[in-house]
Amino acid sequence: MYKVAAIGGDGIGPEIVDAGRVVLDAAGERYGFDIDWTDFDIGADRYLATGELLTEDDLKELSAFKSIYFGSIGDDRVKPGILEKGILLGLRFHFDQYINLRPVRMLAGTQTPLAGKGPEDIDFLVVRENTEDFYVGIGSRFSGKEHRDLEVVRDIYSIKFGLDVESDSEEIAYQIGIISREGSSRVMEYAFDAAMKREKKVTSVDKANVLSDVYGLWRDVFTETAARYPDVTTEFNFVDAVTMWFVKNPEWFDVVVAPNMFGDIITDLGAMIQGGLGLAPGGNINPQGTSLFEPIHGSAPKYKGMNRANPIATIWAGSLLLENLGEPEAAAAVVDAIVQSIAAKQTTVDLGGTLGTREAGAWIADAIRNK
Amino acid sequence: MYKVAAIGGDGIGPEIVDAGRVVLDAAGERYGFDIDWTDFDIGADRYLATGELLTEDDLKELSAFKSIYFGSIGDDRVKPGILEKGILLGLRFHFDQYINLRPVRMLAGTQTPLAGKGPEDIDFLVVRENTEDFYVGIGSRFSGKEHRDLEVVRDIYSIKFGLDVESDSEEIAYQIGIISREGSSRVMEYAFDAAMKREKKVTSVDKANVLSDVYGLWRDVFTETAARYPDVTTEFNFVDAVTMWFVKNPEWFDVVVAPNMFGDIITDLGAMIQGGLGLAPGGNINPQGTSLFEPIHGSAPKYKGMNRANPIATIWAGSLLLENLGEPEAAAAVVDAIVQSIAAKQTTVDLGGTLGTREAGAWIADAIRNK
Ligand SMILES: CC(C)[C@H](C(=O)O)[C@@H](O)C(=O)O
Ligand SMILES: CC(C)[C@H](C(=O)O)[C@@H](O)C(=O)O
Repeated sequence: MYKVAAIGGDGIGPEIVDAGRVVLDAAGERYGFDIDWTDFDIGADRYLATGELLTEDDLKELSAFKSIYFGSIGDDRVKPGILEKGILLGLRFHFDQYINLRPVRMLAGTQTPLAGKGPEDIDFLVVRENTEDFYVGIGSRFSGKEHRDLEVVRDIYSIKFGLDVESDSEEIAYQIGIISREGSSRVMEYAFDAAMKREKKVTSVDKANVLSDVYGLWRDVFTETAARYPDVTTEFNFVDAVTMWFVKNPEWFDVVVAPNMFGDIITDLGAMIQGGLGLAPGGNINPQGTSLFEPIHGSAPKYKGMNRANPIATIWAGSLLLENLGEPEAAAAVVDAIVQSIAAKQTTVDLGGTLGTREAGAWIADAIRNK
Repeated sequence: MYKVAAIGGDGIGPEIVDAGRVVLDAAGERYGFDIDWTDFDIGADRYLATGELLTEDDLKELSAFKSIYFGSIGDDRVKPGILEKGILLGLRFHFDQYINLRPVRMLAGTQTPLAGKGPEDIDFLVVRENTEDFYVGIGSRFSGKEHRDLEVVRDIYSIKFGLDVESDSEEIAYQIGIISREGSSRVMEYAFDAAMKREKKVTSVDKANVLSDVYGLWRDVFTETAARYPDVTTEFNFVDAVTMWFVKNPEWFDVVVAPNMFGDIITDLGAMIQGGLGLAPGGNINPQGTSLFEPIHGSAPKYKGMNRANPIATIWAGSLLLENLGEPEAAAAVVDAIVQSIAAKQTTVDLGGTLGTREAGAWIADAIRNK
């Protein structure tokens, strides 16, 4: 018996999580475990009604779970950033989910926008750092005469503008990113361990030639970690170059380890080359704590309640959840059943089928039961 | 008569600039102007011999030119970042070249890695901010007990780690990005002006949902600028999404305005979809001052001196240089001649021809002369 928390969230989130739950329950029936689901009402509606994003109670209750199954957040009535930072990033940071695991794998029967590439070319794993970098949310926006007591403001004014903070009033904003040795080291170890079970190659992403302080440290920790895994082939790549090679030679990659912000960018690109956001899952993992599994797409408010959204990314995220619970067979069966549904064209319209969200999920659930 | 400074730089830089000079001279012959070239010896060799990156004299002399024709810098003997920051970024910042203009245009006869896309789909202009953001080079790397007198360090320790800076010794690094109202506003005006001469659409790139301080300001300035151009259609896009749409629907874009770091990333991706780095030019423009024109690729040290590198990106950069000098006809003739050379397969091997760098340049020069 596994206890799993479910947060449907906003837009299409509740529908896709519902479809995923049916699949995970079927996997439980077939592989001999039960899932005890607990729903959490977290998202835009509650925020608009009560002003609450994540409450102390939410966090306390969620901390009793090893797994959170998450739909999506984001709502046109709320300014960009509020829900993302207050809820999704809030959970990632609070539960120290330092691994963001994003397989970039093209499934048989799907379409990539890349000419001449197929499932045999597009199959790698991005391990994104998930708690540091420019996601720490430290920054400020002000005009010259405000906050001039802050040392950092004086530094910025004099270094960047050669201006006198006492007299100038231009509006500026700054943002601080942070990378720590410990924070980099733990995600790299995870990446190298993952590579040992795959093709034994790790590519590190940075921009150490320009953002030399944070990514210089990142690069050094990568080099030191690599030295402890002599069987693994390694390479550095600047983030700008990585986006090129994803598109030109995706077959070069096995495991890619990236700092938080660049990881965000390259995994959306990865999702597109593997066939689109409707097919891309992610796990936010704390190996010793509470982990969160989600599709990497957003809440698509305009499709809310229409039973149209493709549930596959969420169902695949459910497979990552099962894997993390120590049910690798059930996890593999979920992905197999997804592939079967695509081959049989028993999918939502975006993949050429005619089913609704619920029906597409139910088909996959049946395929697992009948396995 | 135009005075133009030439900096060949490292690796293949000198060869491709030489090929480009021959083409620009031919354009001068055909369109009735002369170019007076002045060579500058700046790059890795001088740095290794003298320790000098950019001297006061270099900057003083270069400031007499409206145009710098630049090859590339980067050398395996020098740690990443030194030459890039000391020379290329040094010039961009010193001359306040706040526009980085990067056409993403697929030429007839070239190959894109995108399925089913052609020159009619891939034709947009990226206007990258070039003097702010995370490129300002403010940051530091230290372990806890050092620098603890810096307020920012205390902030970082307590906010991020909940740690006491007096007692902890973990190694961390931080990096600061800055965006100013004035800095954003001038690049956006340039982008909107450019859009008025094209399809009248501007897409702004940011990550305002996470890096809300810097990109929140960026977004506000974009909205305010847009209000002054009622004929221009506008949209925001998060950088992660932009990388997806470049690959899936490049035909959606007309002018894309991006902060420095995201602009760096998306223009490499843009270069790849337009056919590869060998075909992508860039202009670093200060409309009132000294501008710099370069291929966006690097110095490819392993091809140095082999007369193998494709000179087209550099020649195309020369076209941007002529445009900036107020020679639009000559500028257009250069691009036409490039297209002609591709159609005639009179190119370097990467584009299916058999010519060397020099010969490919000479062919394009002849095509302009014979026009
Ligand atoms: C919604 C947003 C905060 C988030 C991120 O930037 O991490 C998303 O893009 C993702 O990749 O999960
Ligand atoms: C070489 C490097 C500093 C530079 C940049 O990051 O701007 C390059 O990638 C570019 O795009 O011109």
